[in-house]
Amino acid sequence: MSRATALDDVRILAFDVFGTVVDWRSGIAREVDTLGLGVDGAAFADAWRARYQPAMQPIRRGERAFVRLDVLHRENLDATLAAFGVDGRVDEAARRHLTLAWHRLDPWPDAVPGLTRLRRRYVVAPLSNGGIALLTHMARRTGLPWDCVLSTEVFRSYKPDPRTYLGVAETFDVAPAQVMMCAAHAADLRAAAACGLATAYIDRPHEYGPGGQRDPPSAGDRFDLHTTGIDDLATRLGC
Amino acid sequence: MSRATALDDVRILAFDVFGTVVDWRSGIAREVDTLGLGVDGAAFADAWRARYQPAMQPIRRGERAFVRLDVLHRENLDATLAAFGVDGRVDEAARRHLTLAWHRLDPWPDAVPGLTRLRRRYVVAPLSNGGIALLTHMARRTGLPWDCVLSTEVFRSYKPDPRTYLGVAETFDVAPAQVMMCAAHAADLRAAAACGLATAYIDRPHEYGPGGQRDPPSAGDRFDLHTTGIDDLATRLGC
Repeated sequence: MSRATALDDVRILAFDVFGTVVDWRSGIAREVDTLGLGVDGAAFADAWRARYQPAMQPIRRGERAFVRLDVLHRENLDATLAAFGVDGRVDEAARRHLTLAWHRLDPWPDAVPGLTRLRRRYVVAPLSNGGIALLTHMARRTGLPWDCVLSTEVFRSYKPDPRTYLGVAETFDVAPAQVMMCAAHAADLRAAAACGLATAYIDRPHEYGPGGQRDPPSAGDRFDLHTTGIDDLATRLGC
Repeated sequence: MSRATALDDVRILAFDVFGTVVDWRSGIAREVDTLGLGVDGAAFADAWRARYQPAMQPIRRGERAFVRLDVLHRENLDATLAAFGVDGRVDEAARRHLTLAWHRLDPWPDAVPGLTRLRRRYVVAPLSNGGIALLTHMARRTGLPWDCVLSTEVFRSYKPDPRTYLGVAETFDVAPAQVMMCAAHAADLRAAAACGLATAYIDRPHEYGPGGQRDPPSAGDRFDLHTTGIDDLATRLGC
């Protein structure tokens, strides 16, 4: 079976969200800057985000009961405020508000038009570690045209736990190869491919700002598509 | 706290779907009639639907592992075909297609305009025993403007299990009273009210056809709102 034939079977496009669909770094930096703490907002955003993967690890390993990403974001915020030496300058209400800044992120400019084209032919849904409420509030605010909000919360774990990728296929009663994972991070796509999903890499060179950290494909990766954005993905899929 | 003040706290409207948002009986009858089996489509629809509540009961009781409603619909279809004496006249492909007729139901005329008005102010979501895929396919086909697709599948049970109603509040990190269950069936609303949810009854006198079975409020019921449709609900809530 040729690659082109295999992609003809895809019915569901599952999108990573943080970095792939929305620009989390600029959004978080902007909200931190408005607090006037005298810290660099972008550096704070990077430090807050750096605690993201380690915080999910005990849940993926079954060492901690599942909690929503909002809970982890709050714990990580408290730790980051302490690390920046501004622990005493942000009250409870401000912490609650800032934790929900992850619900108020803006999409990359190609996201809404690209998803709008794609959903003419495919079921388009997020498969994000962000919770159902986070993704719903984000979509209401920005117009992201999801057909449904799938979060790893539905599967009570976090990517890259295989249950999250296979859960999408099971939810829609299709084969794993009929789901395409679309993400800006090679690790996410490698885990999806290991579960039999189709894969589309979406390049986001500015996710971590100019010259910042990224997770691009390495020489050994063989993703089904390599694209420059969600609009390019729509074009490549003939939408 | 007055009733009006309490309703001011509502943030999430959770809708029952079969009968409340979509006209299942006409849709199923139409698809049965096209098979040319010589059975009355509406009578077949009623008989198929009559097996719905009993089929969920073992799952609600924990006597059977959770399976999606599509699986129960298929089991109930097979039993209904046998009961109507047409078991040998419907092949496997036709059974699969007919099972998915529940994904292809049409909304009552006020549903799309009413939900469109309501979502300006509220998060609007289904809370249906229909699965995520069923509700997603239904929304794509009909334009139902859900902010997210909540199904009891997310909570691995079926209404009226309290976990399904409380699960909506937990998902959105709000108090039960900040969720309003909206349904055409008093039993659904009684179970939601027992969990502390706000309740809106939506009258659907034609759900079971002229003079057919219904589940209206009884004299002892005290739902927060009694409405004649989703457009009326929008008006009553000031949308």
